[in-house]
Amino acid sequence: MEMKIQNALNEIKRGISEIIDEERIVTLIKKYFEKGETFLVKAGFDPTAPDLHLGHTVLLQKMALLQKYGAIVQFLIGDFTGMIGDPTGKNETRKKLTREVVLANAETYKEQVFKILDPAKTVVMFNSEWLGSMSASSLIELTTTFNVARMLEREDFEKRYKSQMPISISEFLYPLLQGYDSVAMKCDIEMGGTDQKFNLLMGRHLQRVYGIGKEQAVMMMPLLEGLDGVNKMSKSLGNYIGVTEAPADMFGKMLSISDVLMWRYYELLSSKSLEEIARLKHDVEEGEIHPKHAKEMIAMEIVTRYHGADEALKAQETFNRVHAQNEIPHDIELFTCKEPIWIAKALVDCGLEESTSQARRDIKQGGVKLNQIKVEDEQLQLECGEYVLQVGKRKFAKLKVQ
Amino acid sequence: MEMKIQNALNEIKRGISEIIDEERIVTLIKKYFEKGETFLVKAGFDPTAPDLHLGHTVLLQKMALLQKYGAIVQFLIGDFTGMIGDPTGKNETRKKLTREVVLANAETYKEQVFKILDPAKTVVMFNSEWLGSMSASSLIELTTTFNVARMLEREDFEKRYKSQMPISISEFLYPLLQGYDSVAMKCDIEMGGTDQKFNLLMGRHLQRVYGIGKEQAVMMMPLLEGLDGVNKMSKSLGNYIGVTEAPADMFGKMLSISDVLMWRYYELLSSKSLEEIARLKHDVEEGEIHPKHAKEMIAMEIVTRYHGADEALKAQETFNRVHAQNEIPHDIELFTCKEPIWIAKALVDCGLEESTSQARRDIKQGGVKLNQIKVEDEQLQLECGEYVLQVGKRKFAKLKVQ
Repeated sequence: MEMKIQNALNEIKRGISEIIDEERIVTLIKKYFEKGETFLVKAGFDPTAPDLHLGHTVLLQKMALLQKYGAIVQFLIGDFTGMIGDPTGKNETRKKLTREVVLANAETYKEQVFKILDPAKTVVMFNSEWLGSMSASSLIELTTTFNVARMLEREDFEKRYKSQMPISISEFLYPLLQGYDSVAMKCDIEMGGTDQKFNLLMGRHLQRVYGIGKEQAVMMMPLLEGLDGVNKMSKSLGNYIGVTEAPADMFGKMLSISDVLMWRYYELLSSKSLEEIARLKHDVEEGEIHPKHAKEMIAMEIVTRYHGADEALKAQETFNRVHAQNEIPHDIELFTCKEPIWIAKALVDCGLEESTSQARRDIKQGGVKLNQIKVEDEQLQLECGEYVLQVGKRKFAKLKVQ
Repeated sequence: MEMKIQNALNEIKRGISEIIDEERIVTLIKKYFEKGETFLVKAGFDPTAPDLHLGHTVLLQKMALLQKYGAIVQFLIGDFTGMIGDPTGKNETRKKLTREVVLANAETYKEQVFKILDPAKTVVMFNSEWLGSMSASSLIELTTTFNVARMLEREDFEKRYKSQMPISISEFLYPLLQGYDSVAMKCDIEMGGTDQKFNLLMGRHLQRVYGIGKEQAVMMMPLLEGLDGVNKMSKSLGNYIGVTEAPADMFGKMLSISDVLMWRYYELLSSKSLEEIARLKHDVEEGEIHPKHAKEMIAMEIVTRYHGADEALKAQETFNRVHAQNEIPHDIELFTCKEPIWIAKALVDCGLEESTSQARRDIKQGGVKLNQIKVEDEQLQLECGEYVLQVGKRKFAKLKVQ
C-alpha cells in the first residue's frame, strides 16, 4: 500500500513547479487508497477563451491523473468576471459576455476538456452561481480580510504601480473573488500555473478566514513554452498548438519545435514514463535514433490524443509527402558569378545541366525552379542577388550574383 | 437683484476654507432669486455618534444659511457603513449597528440639528436605502472608475502606506461608496470639513462618470479648534462643547477659551455680522470693553441658541455667583515663617485677624478657609508647606511654612 501511494505521489509530482502543503495531498491520496474517499480539485478557466492549447493541457492532464487517485475535478468557469467585463477598460476584446455566450463557451470547453478529463469525475461550475447573488456588503466584508500593501506585493501589481501604470481598484477585487470561489467550492486542492501563485494562495487564506474547516493545498504547474521555445505558449503570441487544430497542422507544428524543446514537451505532455523518456533521450544522444524520429513520436502521441490514431497517421503521411517534395538540402554547393547571368547559362555553370539547350528544354517542361518557384521564362536574367536553383526533385545549387 | 445675490454670496463664503466650482454656486443662488428654484445640498454624518458638538455646527449653520437661499438640505446618515462595522477591525468602539440603533440615532440627530436647520427644508436620508440593495457586481463596476495610485494619494492613506501601517482594501471602497451617495442623491453641492476634500471630490468625479447630468460643487468648512485652541474640536480629545450640554457647563466652557480663540469662535459660530465683530474687537483692543465681557457675549449667544435666553441668563448668573465666591485674587500678600505654626497665630501674623481669640471665634463660626476648605479644628498646626488663608469673603493671605 505504502508503495502504491508513493508511486502515485511520484507520478503526481512529475513536472510540478511547486506544491504548497504537500502533506495534505499525501493525506488525501492515502484516504482514497485506504477508504475510497474522494476529494475536490479546483482549476479556474477564463470564460472568454474556450480555445484550449497544449499549454492548458499540462494542467488538464495533471487533473486527469488526479482523477485516477480520487479527485473530483471542479472545472470552474469564471463567468462572473466575464459578465462584468474588463476592469481596466483597456482590453477591447474583453467585452461583457451574455449568459448565452457563457453557456455556449462552456459547451465548447466541455468538448475540449473531456478529451482529457474523465466526465464522470468532473463537475463544471460557474462562479456566477455564488458571486452573482453576492451583495455589495458581503463583498465589502470580503475586502476587509486583506490589505493594500500585501495586494501590491503581487508581482504584476508591483511592477505597474512602480512604473506608474494605472491599476483599477476593481483589479484588487478579482484575486479576492477568485479566492472566495475556493470558499464556496470547499475545494481541497487548487491547481494553476506558476503565474497564479498569489491568487492560489488567496484561496487558502480565505478558506482559513471564513473558517470552512479546511485549507486547500496548492499545486502549480510550469508554464509550457510555446513553439519558439522561449515565451509561454499563448494564443496572443501565436506560438501555440490548439487542441482543436487540424491533425496535419498539429503534426507540422510539433515537428517545427527545436530538439531541446522536444524533451520539455516529452516531460510535460507525453504519457510515457520518465524512465522511457530517459531511455529515448539516451538513444538519441548516442545516435541510435534520429532526433527527427523522436520528434515524430511525440507528435504522433499528441495528434493521436486529440484526433485518434488514424488521423495521426494520415497527418504524418501528408506531412512527409509535402516536405519530401519541398525540402531543400542543407548542404548545397555555392557558386558565384561577377555579373548578371542568363538562367540557362547559370544552370550549366553550376553543373545542374549539360548544356544551355537542355536547360531551356527543362525550363519549358516546368522542371526548373528558382527559389522554389517554377521558372516560366527561359530568357530570364539573374541580376545581383542570391538564388537557389533546382532541376527536377533532387538537383540543387546556390548561386550568388555579385 | 445683483446686490442681493452678491450679499448672499458674501454671507455664504464667510469663514469657508475652499470652494470647488464657485460658478455653479453662483448659478444656483441666482436661479433661486430669479425663479425660486431650489437646489440640493448634501452633508454626510456618522451614524455611530449622534453627539454633535460646536465643531459640527460650523457646517450646520452654513447649511442653515443656504436654506435661506434655496437649499434643500440632504442630511445623510451613513448607516450602510455603520451596519457593516469597522473595516480596519481595530476600532473596537465601532461595532456593527442594528437597524434599530440607526433609527434611534437618527432621532437623536434630528433633535439636535433642528435647533439649527429648518426642518421644512431638510430631508434626512440613509445611504442604506441605495447601498443596502447594491449588488457585488455593481460595486465592482463602481471600483473600475478609480485607480489605486490615485487612491493612495489621499493624505492619510499615503502616510499609512509609507509608514507600513496596514490599510484594509475595504477602506479603498468607502470613498467610492461615499461618492456614489452623491450620484444617488443627485446633489448640487456637497459640504464637509477640509479633511474631507478627497471624498468630496470623489462625489463630483462619480457624478461625472455616471453621467447624471450635473457635477456637484464642493464647499469645505474649516475645522473648528477645540477648547485648547490647538487641536480640532473632537469628542475623543475631550476639548469639545456638545450642543446638548447643560447651559451652565456650556457657558463655563465658553468662558474658559483664550482671548485669541474667542475671535475664531466669533467668526465661525456667531450670527453677528463680520462688521459687528470687527467693531467689537476694536473696542476690546482699545480697552473700552473688557475681553471677559466679549467672551460672555459669545457664550450667551451660543447658550441661547441651544437652550433659550432664560436658561442662558441663569447659566450666566450661576457661573458668576460660583466664581465670585470661589475666586482667589491673584495679588495676595505672601508671608513666611520658619517653623510649624498654630493656625490662629498664623492668621494674626498675616494680618487677617486682630487676635488669636478673634481668630478662634471666626474658625468656630466657619469663617476661616485653608486652601479654600473650611477649617474645623481651631487647634490646627500648619506644618511645612504653602497655604492660602482666607477670612470671610475678601481677606486673603499666602503663608509659606519652612
